[in-house]
Amino acid sequence: MPTTGHVFIATSLDGFIARSDGTLDWLLSRDDPTEDHGYDAFIATMDCIVMGRGTFESVLQFPDWHYTLPVLVLSSTLQTIPDHLQGKVTIANLPPTDAMQHLATQGHDRAYIDGGQIIQSFLRARLIETLTITTAPVLLGAGRPLFGTLPADVPLIHETTKTFPSGLVQSTWRLA
Amino acid sequence: MPTTGHVFIATSLDGFIARSDGTLDWLLSRDDPTEDHGYDAFIATMDCIVMGRGTFESVLQFPDWHYTLPVLVLSSTLQTIPDHLQGKVTIANLPPTDAMQHLATQGHDRAYIDGGQIIQSFLRARLIETLTITTAPVLLGAGRPLFGTLPADVPLIHETTKTFPSGLVQSTWRLA
Repeated sequence: MPTTGHVFIATSLDGFIARSDGTLDWLLSRDDPTEDHGYDAFIATMDCIVMGRGTFESVLQFPDWHYTLPVLVLSSTLQTIPDHLQGKVTIANLPPTDAMQHLATQGHDRAYIDGGQIIQSFLRARLIETLTITTAPVLLGAGRPLFGTLPADVPLIHETTKTFPSGLVQSTWRLA
Repeated sequence: MPTTGHVFIATSLDGFIARSDGTLDWLLSRDDPTEDHGYDAFIATMDCIVMGRGTFESVLQFPDWHYTLPVLVLSSTLQTIPDHLQGKVTIANLPPTDAMQHLATQGHDRAYIDGGQIIQSFLRARLIETLTITTAPVLLGAGRPLFGTLPADVPLIHETTKTFPSGLVQSTWRLA
């Protein structure tokens, strides 16, 4: 069975997942920790994570490694994994289709696809099954966009939308 | 009382209001005419319309002029109004703030701000009070974007979100 890709990410209303320098202040300042935005329920249905070098290097800056699922980092330049992440992280220089085939041979059914560039390349390859996008009530005007160019339209099916008192609006779409 | 600006527009999930050539096939093919997406209720609360040259020239191509409200076209190049629109359309070469002051002196309270470039320039000038954005379930990958650069973050307040069986999702945001 092929591995399916799933996105769970937050953007500004104008579609940015981070400022140009990578900062998330605009999102963190709007996050109400008493609200359940569904990340735990989402991640509980995944069995592996795929990210690019940029996202990997960002999460390496946090004091703790907070992923319990195996992580595949797709990179053409990264060579080595920090010692404390041996057995938790694999680095591979693979295009999206080959990466998903690699995960399938390992028995992974559902991959959390994280990071702007990786999400864009997996969308271009039609390897995303669901997109859960949480929109923060702010326009940034510039930053790192969630979406990029595509070889053709990608039709979607709207699944659910939830609104939160904080002003966050979360919709899930399935690729048609 | 200053005139307030209000946006009511549809975009693809990746934020485009039209393809690069201006076509709307991706939206029209997803429009279910049996659904009430609220345009009539919205326009009933407006008392004038502001658009740019591009939008004006687009609507001129329709067989009938379907606006009942007075229309102000902001353009530095347009000079003349077609005879059949005399008394219905005014052309002015004014920046957003001056345009709104002009409308206020004419007693207009609420202006429907339409067209990508005009919406962006009015957002930059903080002359928009509400944004109602209807998201169509499709990624286009390229086109004319709704949003553009801004001099600073524009914080928003989420007001309402409606979902439709067709897959359209409509949210209204108020500038904070």
